[in-house]
Amino acid sequence: MSELKYIDLKQCILEDNDNVANEIRSLSKEKKFFVWNIMSSPGAGKTTFILSVIKRLMDRFRIGVIEGDIESTVDAQKMQALGIPTVQLRTGGDCHLDAAMIKKAMENLPLDKLDIVIIENIGNLVCPAEFDLGADLPSMLLSVPEGDDKALKYPLMFTVCKALIITKIDCLSMFDFDFEALQINVKKLNADLKLFPVSAKNGAGMEQFCKFLEEIVNEKIQLLI
Amino acid sequence: MSELKYIDLKQCILEDNDNVANEIRSLSKEKKFFVWNIMSSPGAGKTTFILSVIKRLMDRFRIGVIEGDIESTVDAQKMQALGIPTVQLRTGGDCHLDAAMIKKAMENLPLDKLDIVIIENIGNLVCPAEFDLGADLPSMLLSVPEGDDKALKYPLMFTVCKALIITKIDCLSMFDFDFEALQINVKKLNADLKLFPVSAKNGAGMEQFCKFLEEIVNEKIQLLI
Repeated sequence: MSELKYIDLKQCILEDNDNVANEIRSLSKEKKFFVWNIMSSPGAGKTTFILSVIKRLMDRFRIGVIEGDIESTVDAQKMQALGIPTVQLRTGGDCHLDAAMIKKAMENLPLDKLDIVIIENIGNLVCPAEFDLGADLPSMLLSVPEGDDKALKYPLMFTVCKALIITKIDCLSMFDFDFEALQINVKKLNADLKLFPVSAKNGAGMEQFCKFLEEIVNEKIQLLI
Repeated sequence: MSELKYIDLKQCILEDNDNVANEIRSLSKEKKFFVWNIMSSPGAGKTTFILSVIKRLMDRFRIGVIEGDIESTVDAQKMQALGIPTVQLRTGGDCHLDAAMIKKAMENLPLDKLDIVIIENIGNLVCPAEFDLGADLPSMLLSVPEGDDKALKYPLMFTVCKALIITKIDCLSMFDFDFEALQINVKKLNADLKLFPVSAKNGAGMEQFCKFLEEIVNEKIQLLI
């Protein structure tokens, strides 16, 4: 009987991805910029939140954006309107961004002149969690209307992130959202995950999040100088 | 030079899936039941909506449910509490249901005694759209808090569905949701897509949707008798 060759394609893809993610980590150290990856369900408010953060920090940091979308350029246009260097990645069907796409996008950004590169991932709570993009801060948004049970259903996303931003808290009164239940489930998966309740609409919690981001960006950049 | 063998794995997977979806279509004709596939982002309100429909129709139809989840059985337990035959499919990481999973789940349902099999798909606007499950009614939920621009960003989902249920319309006043903009974008992709604005919370629009469902279920079952 001949030898059976077994190739785990998914394993190969993820290993290749990890290698490129490490290249991105090296590049971000060499060029002294911070990489922030933002994941969430469709419609959790990524674009609105990112725009709000940029407006608060653009006088202190030089920011660039990589916009991931299956189709359309509507979000990228909003970033450009702020005068932010923006690269649109169109996956044309793929449900996540991978490290090779990010590396390619970074070739089109003025990295020597940036402090922070923001990645707006595809709206999807599943697949993007599997792909390391070499980010200093992998993070996720969970909007109040989505409900407090998402950690039970999409555990990997909550495991790989370092910050969980609860968005749309201005409409808490409209929904049964149990912060305590969420926290209990989240802590079981990832005790180090930092929680930030925010409303980009009325500004609640935005200062606390921006302060946190400012500190970790400065920490990385100052270590490299 | 030797011949280059090119295998498009994704194409193979989708072709295999289509074959099994056709088997499901044959089975549902033979056993005279209707298959309804429900897709959406995480937290768009699939479970609440399905429970509301079941309560309204369970005196007229014999209903079974297939619950798809990456992890957890919280939704399936809610179906069981209504006395509905329920099969939990745990994908353990996979971001969509495929036809083979549905066929397997159907082996565990009393198909001879059912009129409707409801499939609650994984919360994901991307990958589930690629996998035909042999459903008579492929449908999607879009919740008001997600925003009116989703057809631009996730076009395939809007293309493959026959019904688009706009959920959480009770909180329309909290969000900038432009029905007209949505309709314009949707019609470009899929002129036949039927729209149903609903609130499972206050019952708005539920009767209209249930009447539509009742009619198409009866239409299929009566044709087969």
